[in-house]
Amino acid sequence: TTDPVPTPSSPPPDVVRAASMELVVTDLEASRRFYVDVLDLVVTEEDEDTVYLRSLEEFIHHNLVLRRGPVAAVAAFSYRVRTPEDLDRAVAFYTELGCRVERRTDGWVKGVGDSVRVTDPLGFPYEFFHEVDHVERLAWAYDRHTPGALVRIDHFNQVTPDVPRAVAYMENLGFRVTEDIQDEAGTTYAAWMRRKPTVHDTAMTGGDGPRMHHVAFATHEKHNILAICDKLGALRMTDSIERGPGRHGVSNAFYLYLRDPDGHRVEIYTQDYWTGDPDNPVVTWDVHDNQRRDWWGNPVVPSWYTDASRVLDLDGELQPLTSRTDDSEMEVTIGADGFSYTRKGDTEHGFKLGATL
Amino acid sequence: TTDPVPTPSSPPPDVVRAASMELVVTDLEASRRFYVDVLDLVVTEEDEDTVYLRSLEEFIHHNLVLRRGPVAAVAAFSYRVRTPEDLDRAVAFYTELGCRVERRTDGWVKGVGDSVRVTDPLGFPYEFFHEVDHVERLAWAYDRHTPGALVRIDHFNQVTPDVPRAVAYMENLGFRVTEDIQDEAGTTYAAWMRRKPTVHDTAMTGGDGPRMHHVAFATHEKHNILAICDKLGALRMTDSIERGPGRHGVSNAFYLYLRDPDGHRVEIYTQDYWTGDPDNPVVTWDVHDNQRRDWWGNPVVPSWYTDASRVLDLDGELQPLTSRTDDSEMEVTIGADGFSYTRKGDTEHGFKLGATL
Amino acid sequence: TTDPVPTPSSPPPDVVRAASMELVVTDLEASRRFYVDVLDLVVTEEDEDTVYLRSLEEFIHHNLVLRRGPVAAVAAFSYRVRTPEDLDRAVAFYTELGCRVERRTDGWVKGVGDSVRVTDPLGFPYEFFHEVDHVERLAWAYDRHTPGALVRIDHFNQVTPDVPRAVAYMENLGFRVTEDIQDEAGTTYAAWMRRKPTVHDTAMTGGDGPRMHHVAFATHEKHNILAICDKLGALRMTDSIERGPGRHGVSNAFYLYLRDPDGHRVEIYTQDYWTGDPDNPVVTWDVHDNQRRDWWGNPVVPSWYTDASRVLDLDGELQPLTSRTDDSEMEVTIGADGFSYTRKGDTEHGFKLGATL
Amino acid sequence: TTDPVPTPSSPPPDVVRAASMELVVTDLEASRRFYVDVLDLVVTEEDEDTVYLRSLEEFIHHNLVLRRGPVAAVAAFSYRVRTPEDLDRAVAFYTELGCRVERRTDGWVKGVGDSVRVTDPLGFPYEFFHEVDHVERLAWAYDRHTPGALVRIDHFNQVTPDVPRAVAYMENLGFRVTEDIQDEAGTTYAAWMRRKPTVHDTAMTGGDGPRMHHVAFATHEKHNILAICDKLGALRMTDSIERGPGRHGVSNAFYLYLRDPDGHRVEIYTQDYWTGDPDNPVVTWDVHDNQRRDWWGNPVVPSWYTDASRVLDLDGELQPLTSRTDDSEMEVTIGADGFSYTRKGDTEHGFKLGATL
Ligand SMILES: [Ca+2]
Ligand SMILES: [Fe+2]
Ligand SMILES: [Fe+2]
Ligand SMILES: [Fe+2]
Ligand SMILES: [Fe+2]
Repeated sequence: TTDPVPTPSSPPPDVVRAASMELVVTDLEASRRFYVDVLDLVVTEEDEDTVYLRSLEEFIHHNLVLRRGPVAAVAAFSYRVRTPEDLDRAVAFYTELGCRVERRTDGWVKGVGDSVRVTDPLGFPYEFFHEVDHVERLAWAYDRHTPGALVRIDHFNQVTPDVPRAVAYMENLGFRVTEDIQDEAGTTYAAWMRRKPTVHDTAMTGGDGPRMHHVAFATHEKHNILAICDKLGALRMTDSIERGPGRHGVSNAFYLYLRDPDGHRVEIYTQDYWTGDPDNPVVTWDVHDNQRRDWWGNPVVPSWYTDASRVLDLDGELQPLTSRTDDSEMEVTIGADGFSYTRKGDTEHGFKLGATL
Repeated sequence: TTDPVPTPSSPPPDVVRAASMELVVTDLEASRRFYVDVLDLVVTEEDEDTVYLRSLEEFIHHNLVLRRGPVAAVAAFSYRVRTPEDLDRAVAFYTELGCRVERRTDGWVKGVGDSVRVTDPLGFPYEFFHEVDHVERLAWAYDRHTPGALVRIDHFNQVTPDVPRAVAYMENLGFRVTEDIQDEAGTTYAAWMRRKPTVHDTAMTGGDGPRMHHVAFATHEKHNILAICDKLGALRMTDSIERGPGRHGVSNAFYLYLRDPDGHRVEIYTQDYWTGDPDNPVVTWDVHDNQRRDWWGNPVVPSWYTDASRVLDLDGELQPLTSRTDDSEMEVTIGADGFSYTRKGDTEHGFKLGATL
Repeated sequence: TTDPVPTPSSPPPDVVRAASMELVVTDLEASRRFYVDVLDLVVTEEDEDTVYLRSLEEFIHHNLVLRRGPVAAVAAFSYRVRTPEDLDRAVAFYTELGCRVERRTDGWVKGVGDSVRVTDPLGFPYEFFHEVDHVERLAWAYDRHTPGALVRIDHFNQVTPDVPRAVAYMENLGFRVTEDIQDEAGTTYAAWMRRKPTVHDTAMTGGDGPRMHHVAFATHEKHNILAICDKLGALRMTDSIERGPGRHGVSNAFYLYLRDPDGHRVEIYTQDYWTGDPDNPVVTWDVHDNQRRDWWGNPVVPSWYTDASRVLDLDGELQPLTSRTDDSEMEVTIGADGFSYTRKGDTEHGFKLGATL
Repeated sequence: TTDPVPTPSSPPPDVVRAASMELVVTDLEASRRFYVDVLDLVVTEEDEDTVYLRSLEEFIHHNLVLRRGPVAAVAAFSYRVRTPEDLDRAVAFYTELGCRVERRTDGWVKGVGDSVRVTDPLGFPYEFFHEVDHVERLAWAYDRHTPGALVRIDHFNQVTPDVPRAVAYMENLGFRVTEDIQDEAGTTYAAWMRRKPTVHDTAMTGGDGPRMHHVAFATHEKHNILAICDKLGALRMTDSIERGPGRHGVSNAFYLYLRDPDGHRVEIYTQDYWTGDPDNPVVTWDVHDNQRRDWWGNPVVPSWYTDASRVLDLDGELQPLTSRTDDSEMEVTIGADGFSYTRKGDTEHGFKLGATL
């Protein structure tokens, strides 16, 4: 990292969790069908240009905002903070970093009060809020649960050229790394970072950025994820299935990647592990371990590496992209003969997973 | 058995499977809500007084007929036979037994053609049919599957005073015993009998009869059965849950017993085993083995032993009851201190389950 | 509460999570068979008088210590704290409360370093530790997972006479209530409290105390819990099954209660919900809502209300019991005719679960 | 079909089900590890050169025989017949077809009595037996079940050049088609045929033959199949995973394909549907429907099309191969741009799945 993000002297806001994403979609009706009729997210509220959606165990107003717009993009990665005062901290933290910061006491979207949006040092539109309307937590409303019930928002995944630079900035924001992918030369291809005690609230994936790789929702069990695939088959919508279902190596979770009508990627995810201890062991995976991204060794489809959604600045304009200059994970893991790996020569490293680099 | 049912010289019809039950219900709207809105059976057809329902993997017109009537009862236990000629065999078989037999070439209910109904030697209204309308098999229609999806009708369960007498008659009808419950004195408390190669198409349970103990529908997996309980909880309808969920000893299946608005008992059932080999081993359980009815040793609620639905004759009148004179399973298994059993003193009998009597 | 626990001026230790329980067992070999051969917990280390066990996703030395002793009891409810300095806070906090406090820099058990044990104001032996040996996290070691795999310790449950008094003390210790059971007169029958963002790290159940009601381990999915029941059936150990499996109303989790060879109660638990937001809504259940303890309305066996394990003081002597003087949940919920409830007359209260008292 | 297999005047044996396969393996120790230590099949009996394995719900001696030999191949596809006299029928049926027929009253393998082996008109080594040793049915032995428990053998799959010719012969043997894959020109690419009332006891897949495509074992639930993948990941044996897991279009079952140490293909399979009615609707899939082989539209790996095991004649010599001259499914479904399909232009055909050709 030649151009590190400075460490502010201001303390960061106390982020509770990844809470919501605002997506700009080009065909609101098509997107509504995908998220409501197919994925069965719950509509909290909607108007002509916006649909506010939540998962079944959520008690805040929304986890996903679909907003009609001319170009598919991400308008906000939104984090809940612990107290109203954490918004002051967010303002100070990002102001000190020289970022554009805008605070709206009535919120940027319905259901949310006083909020701060920034264009962060990596170019992402980050939002912080505390005040939010409470709505019915449908955890016990099993008459409304469907076979593929989405019960929580789990995490974001962001594409950025320089992963170590991004990690250092996120650590200043109070995030902690739980897993990453590296190679023997020390290149970091991706890193997972958490505030809540799961594997992550967001991950940084190496690539041209800033872009949004995916937003993830959780189910209770693995069969719920399989049921989503079965339903997409019945609806003759299997083009929406990009990758999976499968078991991740990183995170140990069961996963499925879908693409919405605009190509925004949505992950369905279940059953990672507790990471809340202060000395939670970081798991580093060798980029050449072909079980790192699929524990069963199934190949990663190239689009999963190459495609991602553009993000907006606070004026709603597309953020420019910066190219990754480090090695690309796709290039170093796909040989002339398809997906290659170095697993066969791996030696055991005690009880550590992945390779100890 | 002092009064055995004679063995006809006529060959029996070739029964394929338990296919449908006709239930008389006193509040058709309430019953429709239970079977359609709660249990998510599929309506094939309906009119003012009748609802025809099927399970999701069924391709014949119906597995359950709800018919409005003044007294809750069972109008028919309906079996599909292999060929049209098997109806002639059914007529000859039951005529030789001196039973009332009535054949209707247009069927007794919609969707079914030429059919024979009899009042059988045990007093039950049995129906046999071959001709039937084909409808869409919704196996692949996962957009219509719900968390508690019922995919097949599995079996009936009948209450009759003299189980060995009933078994001998059913063996003449071509059924084969797969499991039973006995005691050391040779009393038989219940027997499971099959045509299709699962544990049963019907079972005979000792008690005052003829009565219908339950009709059973199958799910794919155990979590589907749990989902039905969760939904009943959400609807504040838990009074419908009579017993379970649990694992049966007999049949090894996972089960749940519900009571419909008229008190008709419905079992939800999944994962018994293949019994189609000609020498399939019969499993005899000791009535004092408290894992015979619940493999986890959970007690059986008394209503499960005492309650059952009345059945109708071919004129729609209630069949009179005959009392059981053999020992009652409930009485021999519930001591002064609640549910007792002799398991603790059981000795192992090689690889045979239950006690070898 | 006539005799409130004072609020110390010292700040409490920062508790990360319920991490381990030390159980005194009278037949170590029998207990080892139960926890290792039946429940498949992993042995980290053992000697002649002690077995150290952990769950499959754990990376600290143990979640359960079995120690041979003359009387079955609980020697410690052990919490992990965030920093070494939190032990100083624990000493100051409990010293100010007038409790007996003992610190051992080498720990009270193997695998753990500097630790503080106290007899807390409610009479419970609480332990706090930070230093602990790391061991292999077997999350990915699926070749060692069994059908009933226990992946995490989830929570404790304590019996104490005066629940509001206990809750006030625990709130001073930094815990937060997520759910409780009350009646219209304001009596509190039980309360669930958390540090980690799940429904609880411990619960306070009204009754003669101090006693330990249960310790709970988590599985990934519901079928894992059913598999434990199936295995107990195969081993003819169904007397170990005390209650369940079922769905809780409180916590919305799927559960099973077992009794170990000494009668210590172990819960198997899966799938409660996120509670980590600062304004997480507290769910108050009416004691007369018969879905509060089993969402399916299945009855609670009386032993579950009456039985619990004694706890030890720091010298290893049994703590004396104090009787509950408030109403007993068992008595107010079981009528002459068995389990009664007022659900039928319940009116809806908007989107709040349970009754709003 | 220019060279049809004649229709014998002799009635065929009454086949109950696909019961066992005899595999020749080149490294018996490696194969035993795969089937016993990884897949957890039960060893009924073994000697220096042979291992007899069964699934957990089986009561006959074996479902799989591993026999040490110089070249990996299939020595027998073994079917159970209903009566001892069916062996006479098998002899007459195949003698009339001009096939080599050999009967051994003591059986060809341990545990099985009087048996007939033939080289059938398609070149496959078919075995028929009735007499067989009974062994413990481990259905209730849940202490021996593992997360990926295989409970039944389900079916075979055979590669043969001329599918309609093979189907006509199998129909003479008493099998019935349940599903097939065709194109608009009338080419048949594969057909599924059953004796037991599931989708199949064997399938005929178009290709150079005779070869064995796979043998399939059933689990109870889908998570059992995922657990096998997870375990293979933990054992760093993911090269054994060839295709899947996924949902089949044909059969509607959930599947996984593995390759054993010799490359013999094993399918793990669960939850197809009842086909036992005499008028069970045949489902014909269009070869250009890319959901026919994977309901989720995931691509089929080329090796799954090209690789298969050689089969032996009754002297243990490799049977020569005949090339398929009809179109190849792989070639017509993989375009220059990878896996292509005509789904997008599909029109709905009422309630029929696949295309009505
Ligand atoms: Ca019990
Ligand atoms: Fe993700
Ligand atoms: Fe039943
Ligand atoms: Fe608990
Ligand atoms: Fe297959």
